[in-house]
Amino acid sequence: MDAIFLAAAVPARPGESALELGCGAGAAILSLGTRVPGLRLAGLEVQSAYAALARANAAGNALALDLWEGDVAAPPPDLNARAFDQVLLNPPYYDRAATTRAADPGRDLAHGGDTPAALWLALAARRLRPGGTLTLIQRAARLPDLLAALPATMGSPELLPLAPRVGRPAATILLRARKGGRAPFRLRAPLPVHAAPRHEFDGEDLSSWARAVLRDGAALPWD
Amino acid sequence: MDAIFLAAAVPARPGESALELGCGAGAAILSLGTRVPGLRLAGLEVQSAYAALARANAAGNALALDLWEGDVAAPPPDLNARAFDQVLLNPPYYDRAATTRAADPGRDLAHGGDTPAALWLALAARRLRPGGTLTLIQRAARLPDLLAALPATMGSPELLPLAPRVGRPAATILLRARKGGRAPFRLRAPLPVHAAPRHEFDGEDLSSWARAVLRDGAALPWD
Repeated sequence: MDAIFLAAAVPARPGESALELGCGAGAAILSLGTRVPGLRLAGLEVQSAYAALARANAAGNALALDLWEGDVAAPPPDLNARAFDQVLLNPPYYDRAATTRAADPGRDLAHGGDTPAALWLALAARRLRPGGTLTLIQRAARLPDLLAALPATMGSPELLPLAPRVGRPAATILLRARKGGRAPFRLRAPLPVHAAPRHEFDGEDLSSWARAVLRDGAALPWD
Repeated sequence: MDAIFLAAAVPARPGESALELGCGAGAAILSLGTRVPGLRLAGLEVQSAYAALARANAAGNALALDLWEGDVAAPPPDLNARAFDQVLLNPPYYDRAATTRAADPGRDLAHGGDTPAALWLALAARRLRPGGTLTLIQRAARLPDLLAALPATMGSPELLPLAPRVGRPAATILLRARKGGRAPFRLRAPLPVHAAPRHEFDGEDLSSWARAVLRDGAALPWD
């Protein structure tokens, strides 16, 4: 669901360009391309198998997708030559405290030696045109690290928490920021994914906005 | 109201010690002392006039208060010699970019002076005993700066947003963290201060928890 919520949160307008960093098999970027017609879609993915799936999924949905196979830490030069109106990402998360150390110290260093979130956000900021919007989705527990890693060029940050149900702590957060923005930080009211206060066994339990996003391809009610 | 909400959010138990940094006239620390019996209360305040008011208010409420007159940037040595179970603060915030300077220099100082959030939080962390809790209240727009300034010794951060009404963006945030804590960051469901979805002119409009806190001296429903 996170990929669809991410795509639904991107404030793209027809004719704009959109890049997903770490696009995997393309669920988010292709969902965005389906919701907003006339976007120029692009993706970066480090794993060949996922990149191949993303290409196949783009073709299967009759969407054009510029796909680079490459690493966020060393992005391809022709990706570095482009600027986008929208950059979206669901950055992977390596938690040194909660994860056992890799047997190979070089691998361990590569995954945890510096701040991975900062690399992802720095590349996102660099690839945005002035005034462009970064949109990301992440586990709520990661918020302090993400806010600390947000480059100074990214302003007007807005946080939209997603809670499993009304009154429950947020499980997931959506964060948007604008390159060169100067508005103060805004913490929006959370959206509950499920409608009932407790799990109910008969019938579908999604809240109305979540059903509209997941079933009908609607945008997320951000504004 | 912020001072009372701050005091109501401190998880103090009888017999503990509590320090407020920048206690002003003592509204928060004395409210805490009234709600939780048997606390040892302490405060630090840089302005003599406020410090004198805090002393008078403590006496008027028959509460013992250790009050230091001094600056967060250069705390008194005998304050530095003590450790507390609870530290609370509503760090003043002066955004030089966004605000015109107050005509009254004392008022200007009370609204922030030049002391950055990092100094306030670093002193709070140093004055807590291991396992002690920091509690702060602040405008929601300050959240990114506060999270970035939270010392690494302060863990298990929990954020409780206060919204004016259900569904509205948070105006204020309460942040708690534990010295040496290792739990992940938690973003709780916001509490609405007012009950009705819109302002209503007849009768009191507070939500039930806000009425309990403001009228009856109850603790804030944090857990």
